[in-house]
Amino acid sequence: MNEIKNIAEDTNYTAVDLGNLNDLMNYSLIHPVNKQKIEGKVFLKDACKLTGAEISFNSLAAKVEQGYFHIHNKNEETYIILKGHGFFQVDGKCFDIKEGSVIRVAPKGIRGIRNDSDDTMVYIVVQAKENSLEEYTTDDGSRVTFDPKW
Amino acid sequence: MNEIKNIAEDTNYTAVDLGNLNDLMNYSLIHPVNKQKIEGKVFLKDACKLTGAEISFNSLAAKVEQGYFHIHNKNEETYIILKGHGFFQVDGKCFDIKEGSVIRVAPKGIRGIRNDSDDTMVYIVVQAKENSLEEYTTDDGSRVTFDPKW
Repeated sequence: MNEIKNIAEDTNYTAVDLGNLNDLMNYSLIHPVNKQKIEGKVFLKDACKLTGAEISFNSLAAKVEQGYFHIHNKNEETYIILKGHGFFQVDGKCFDIKEGSVIRVAPKGIRGIRNDSDDTMVYIVVQAKENSLEEYTTDDGSRVTFDPKW
Repeated sequence: MNEIKNIAEDTNYTAVDLGNLNDLMNYSLIHPVNKQKIEGKVFLKDACKLTGAEISFNSLAAKVEQGYFHIHNKNEETYIILKGHGFFQVDGKCFDIKEGSVIRVAPKGIRGIRNDSDDTMVYIVVQAKENSLEEYTTDDGSRVTFDPKW
């Protein structure tokens, strides 16, 4: 079974290594409520000390769907498909997804996902509180003088 | 030049297609402040109507670094390395990164990144307001009955 490795950490950062992304199926976790084992999934919030989003890597074996549909209370979810192709369904409407597809779902959207390809599907889910982002990108960032050590 | 394509949209979702992730270098944008062209970068907030995070796909050509270091005002950034290997530096400390590395940086961390591989480096950046996440994962989600259309 894979484990997240710490790379570097200090006051303003935490860096970890998940290993090769083709090996994500070797991660598993025990669902905290129903105690079932979920394979091919790894949450990053605790390992990386995230405070603004929960980010997970997820995988589905060939021709397999996530075994449930779900909604959220406060959080928007964004699905980013990295490998494979299949179907995504929200509120009864189903559409094709593939590598490079990005799907934002509002908390109340009833969502499900299926891998219809012959290989493992890999995708990232970003969970963040709906309407929590204020300023962003260049409005929130400032360039600073620097001295690269590489 | 690549363009984001809309796949599907309704009240609770917006889905887009970025195309093959090996072709990210074909995206470019004009920096809103200094008006310089930035290649290999695509922001998703507007296209996907994100409200809790800004998410970007980024790429760096072989042996190339981002041309600046920067800090943020309110937002935490999380870098997810999808392809390639190189260096990441925060607050004067430099460490190795590669496919599968995930780095969380607090707003005030002075950060920079360099691709040291012979191929294009591809990475995602998630920008979310520091300390904005309240409940998450199973505490925020609920399973619902469903009728898959696939």
